[in-house]
Amino acid sequence: MSQPASQPAFVLIRPQMGENIGGAARAMWNFGLDRMRIVAPRDGWPNPKAVAMASGAGRLLDEAGLYEDTRAALGDCTYVFATTARSRGLTKPVVTPERAMEIAREKIAAGEKVAVLFGPERAGLENDDIARANAIINVPVNPEFASLNLAQCVLLTAYEWRRQTVDVAPERVELAGSDWASQIEIEKLADHYEERLDTAGFFFPEIKAPGMKLNLRNLWSRMPLTRSDVQMLHGVLRQMVRWKERGD
Amino acid sequence: MSQPASQPAFVLIRPQMGENIGGAARAMWNFGLDRMRIVAPRDGWPNPKAVAMASGAGRLLDEAGLYEDTRAALGDCTYVFATTARSRGLTKPVVTPERAMEIAREKIAAGEKVAVLFGPERAGLENDDIARANAIINVPVNPEFASLNLAQCVLLTAYEWRRQTVDVAPERVELAGSDWASQIEIEKLADHYEERLDTAGFFFPEIKAPGMKLNLRNLWSRMPLTRSDVQMLHGVLRQMVRWKERGD
Repeated sequence: MSQPASQPAFVLIRPQMGENIGGAARAMWNFGLDRMRIVAPRDGWPNPKAVAMASGAGRLLDEAGLYEDTRAALGDCTYVFATTARSRGLTKPVVTPERAMEIAREKIAAGEKVAVLFGPERAGLENDDIARANAIINVPVNPEFASLNLAQCVLLTAYEWRRQTVDVAPERVELAGSDWASQIEIEKLADHYEERLDTAGFFFPEIKAPGMKLNLRNLWSRMPLTRSDVQMLHGVLRQMVRWKERGD
Repeated sequence: MSQPASQPAFVLIRPQMGENIGGAARAMWNFGLDRMRIVAPRDGWPNPKAVAMASGAGRLLDEAGLYEDTRAALGDCTYVFATTARSRGLTKPVVTPERAMEIAREKIAAGEKVAVLFGPERAGLENDDIARANAIINVPVNPEFASLNLAQCVLLTAYEWRRQTVDVAPERVELAGSDWASQIEIEKLADHYEERLDTAGFFFPEIKAPGMKLNLRNLWSRMPLTRSDVQMLHGVLRQMVRWKERGD
């Protein structure tokens, strides 16, 4: 069950209450998931309240990866889902938990590394985090009353994972022919473009710069890019710089 | 949403902690269910702790039916599910939450009254209660760790109800005010890049140029680009050219 990439990693972004981290661990393990990553927990780490709450699923906390920021937590991932209650005006596929875990199963079977992001209790994920995701998971809650807490959101997603993997469904294995770029490779591509375009004066006027940067970053993460796509896109930019420097 | 028999009643049998009753109410209302029945709550009724926990879903508690025993609570029901973690050696159909809510939808559409029983926190339903049910709902938990609490069990069942009844678009992409670029727009983008990169000396050596052009063109056409993405990508290139021409 804990073989390297046989399941998605669940990544808690800046979780606040230790109890909720413990509750998320229990929710995961209820459905056989045990790969947790934690980004910048508010109250430090390890957290005794998390351990107390996790009883029976404490191993997940012991083995959880701890990261300073979202970027670091996703370094090795090739496909990332963000869970969010609200639409954020970012152009991304929005899928149900069921469809998301179906996609996750297919991608993992094809050798990809999949992660699911869960935001902090009060505010949810920030746009910066969501911009790193390939798709958004939207739980079909009652629009009059959407009050899922962190552990409940984890529970429903983990449940859908188990529904995909236990039971029936003959394994559909995608052709692993494509060598998808990892999250860190996409990040570096985004960084490269942002840096060069900054120098070139693209992000203008200044007041619009953060929004433009977010949109551009979102564009890269939303694209199904292979490693060679990424290399080509780096090459495009490098060549434009060379051309400028040649000054002919 | 609260029409008489448009949804199943969720029946809490001898619930113990008020907090769990409130949590169950929230879980139900998250997925649009509001018909709760309560049988012999340990700490009496009404329960202030239930009310405090239910915040936002308090109406369900106000309107909940209170019953002395399971028999009385099910008097008007024509089809009853019992949720249980363990098999009890009773000969009954055992179904997943998904299948159960599918059956519930069909029966309710045919005018039946459906109920789902949830047992007390520690012990779960007694055999006497289960014997009253037509079928058993079994949540496919990890056999090594089955620790769903009452509100979580309610949550998963309510979620499956909503999945059965709400039109959940399988996959949609938010359009953030723009829509997908047309084929001709993608072509023009590809032309723009090809032309500028040609000038910049990107397609080198010459023998590789046709293959490189094809790959780049293929990249653009393979991407799910919106009109504003296309404009941004044109802008990126134009800015690089301006930067070069400024020669600073």
